[in-house]
Amino acid sequence: MALDPGKDDGGIALGQAESRYAPVMRFGADAPLLLDCGVNLAPLDIAYQTYGTLNAQRSNAILICHALTLDQYVTGIHPLTGRTGWWNIMVGPGKPLDTDRYFIICANVIGGCIGSTGPTSINPATGRPYGLSFPVITIGDMVNAQAKLVEALGIEQLFCVIGGSMGGMQVLQWAYDYPEKVFSAVPIATAALHSAQNIAFHEVGRQAIMADPDWRGGDYLNQDTRPEKGLAVARMAAHITYLSEAALHEKFGRNLQDREKIGFGFDADFQVESYLRHQGSTFVERFDANSYLYLTRAMDYFDLAAESGGVLAEAFRGAKTRFCVISFTSDWLFPTSESREIVQALNAAAANVSFVEIESQKGHDAFLLDEPELFATLRGFLNAAADKRGLKHVG
Amino acid sequence: MALDPGKDDGGIALGQAESRYAPVMRFGADAPLLLDCGVNLAPLDIAYQTYGTLNAQRSNAILICHALTLDQYVTGIHPLTGRTGWWNIMVGPGKPLDTDRYFIICANVIGGCIGSTGPTSINPATGRPYGLSFPVITIGDMVNAQAKLVEALGIEQLFCVIGGSMGGMQVLQWAYDYPEKVFSAVPIATAALHSAQNIAFHEVGRQAIMADPDWRGGDYLNQDTRPEKGLAVARMAAHITYLSEAALHEKFGRNLQDREKIGFGFDADFQVESYLRHQGSTFVERFDANSYLYLTRAMDYFDLAAESGGVLAEAFRGAKTRFCVISFTSDWLFPTSESREIVQALNAAAANVSFVEIESQKGHDAFLLDEPELFATLRGFLNAAADKRGLKHVG
Repeated sequence: MALDPGKDDGGIALGQAESRYAPVMRFGADAPLLLDCGVNLAPLDIAYQTYGTLNAQRSNAILICHALTLDQYVTGIHPLTGRTGWWNIMVGPGKPLDTDRYFIICANVIGGCIGSTGPTSINPATGRPYGLSFPVITIGDMVNAQAKLVEALGIEQLFCVIGGSMGGMQVLQWAYDYPEKVFSAVPIATAALHSAQNIAFHEVGRQAIMADPDWRGGDYLNQDTRPEKGLAVARMAAHITYLSEAALHEKFGRNLQDREKIGFGFDADFQVESYLRHQGSTFVERFDANSYLYLTRAMDYFDLAAESGGVLAEAFRGAKTRFCVISFTSDWLFPTSESREIVQALNAAAANVSFVEIESQKGHDAFLLDEPELFATLRGFLNAAADKRGLKHVG
Repeated sequence: MALDPGKDDGGIALGQAESRYAPVMRFGADAPLLLDCGVNLAPLDIAYQTYGTLNAQRSNAILICHALTLDQYVTGIHPLTGRTGWWNIMVGPGKPLDTDRYFIICANVIGGCIGSTGPTSINPATGRPYGLSFPVITIGDMVNAQAKLVEALGIEQLFCVIGGSMGGMQVLQWAYDYPEKVFSAVPIATAALHSAQNIAFHEVGRQAIMADPDWRGGDYLNQDTRPEKGLAVARMAAHITYLSEAALHEKFGRNLQDREKIGFGFDADFQVESYLRHQGSTFVERFDANSYLYLTRAMDYFDLAAESGGVLAEAFRGAKTRFCVISFTSDWLFPTSESREIVQALNAAAANVSFVEIESQKGHDAFLLDEPELFATLRGFLNAAADKRGLKHVG
């Protein structure tokens, strides 16, 4: 990645790294990020995208925190995949995250592989990709990196921090670490700690990657290999957990793929097999295997109650942030019971919280999909909060 | 495997193959098994174990059908693992499957790897292990093989056919294919067809195995390798589905393994990770990877309604068998709704059926564990059926 520290983006950048994923905010050796593991990470690149216009008061910024395998391209065309951004349905003029009213920011998490510093980045100590020499990061580290970006963008307080799944964990962490910087918070389909079952599923994915001889102990980038088969298996296993049994039944059932009868073999007889294989093979084209290890690990480590002496309510004591907690009935990866624990803690802390469990058959991925009740909920909550905050349309 | 066709076991054997898994019933080239895929399988070995004593009327035999990764050693010491049989808790003098009253039979399924003909057996056409040249089998094929064994043992009607999971599928298939040979049937934690989600989980396991370069296109036995890493990953993914989230939470929660703090690395920080890795590594010592492919495929293909013109009730029309269908509240692999579909079909066919959903937090594996309500249910159902059948204690 070639650097051009002289380049300046409207006076708000400390330094901009040239990248296919521009803009990228660079924090140099003089501004390292102290990670939870004790390592000072520098240089630190944060690749981000913005949509809409920051108002004069700098009070209309919404930070979207992305999920495990997603990135900063929430709308528009993704430069790597050529596909439309992952939350195009939600972000844009007149949409719930209305770019005529709000200034939307989304940054690739650190540890990721779409422009922010992660295991594919160059380790300055060796001049070669970090691989497994990249320090293990936490959700807190991701949020601290985002906070540096937000500060560099000249924003003192975010109007809203919003995200689903791993993004929801970041939302909670933001509200915990920077309560004064978060006017409102929308954690969706998430939990205040990662459950044993979810750690187990992550461990299966990591073992699948590490079992692939092309992983080369994590050093594959230096050895010109890629653990594609292992990463594809990890993705396939994870993908099942993102859907509901009802969704799989409705979408595929026992339908056969391009055949009238079962083939008595190990080809993809069933549509659901063909679909899963496709999920695996397309994923490896856009994601780094070591990033997958690091980001799943960060989720495993997430436990906000543990950070607050074991009592989740303590994490939110005195919070002025307005919360909207959202879950989906058919999400078995982050079931409603886990959202309810967040809500109960917020209530115990006398926080301002609304809670919506949305009836949906679409499973965990419902937050990415066309769910009218989700749209209505977000629109209503954001409108009310924006009125409270005195935000006007700026488009 | 050396053969000794002259050896005879009390006059009931057509031929006995010498094996560490003796007794093994051998059906030679003159008595092939016609498989659903159209292949005639011969020779056919069926390794089996019996417990208790067959009465003079040969009317007290219970056939246990085992689950995917289990085998004929339901009690006693397993010759390969040195561990106690998998249903020791259920089978023995005075236990629900009372060896003082019943003659218990359990046979390794064909396609398996504990003595019955499967992909590790010698292909007579090549003189080398079958590997992927073994024909793809179905639950129906497993049952037809067992029927040959039962006939060879001189038993006209089984007092009961019982099994959980894949074993439950065999129970249903027995009742469908051989209604007059099944006095009573107990399908536990199973379904009349394999769901899209379950096919998906199986496909992940198969892909994990096939992604392992040591799998060698299925020819690993001839190339002196073993796809242990891939098989371990398959086992880990599957194992999560055998437990409930509540069971994992109660057993492990977020407890750390032999450490006070998270290690900021990819070792097994959490007990649940260590447990899963152990499940994977011990499994590969006792199971064959290709068998795993074949048996999961047989389950995927299972769809009893499809065999009956799409209406499950037709599968049981006119059945005289007494059924006891059992499910567990926390089983998400074969949820109660799928047992209820079986019960509704049996009711629609005016069959004799009782149905018990057992309250348990133990997930799918509850049928293998100490569940008092399961014991009471089986004891009650079998006692009543045995009285109806006029069975006395024979011990």
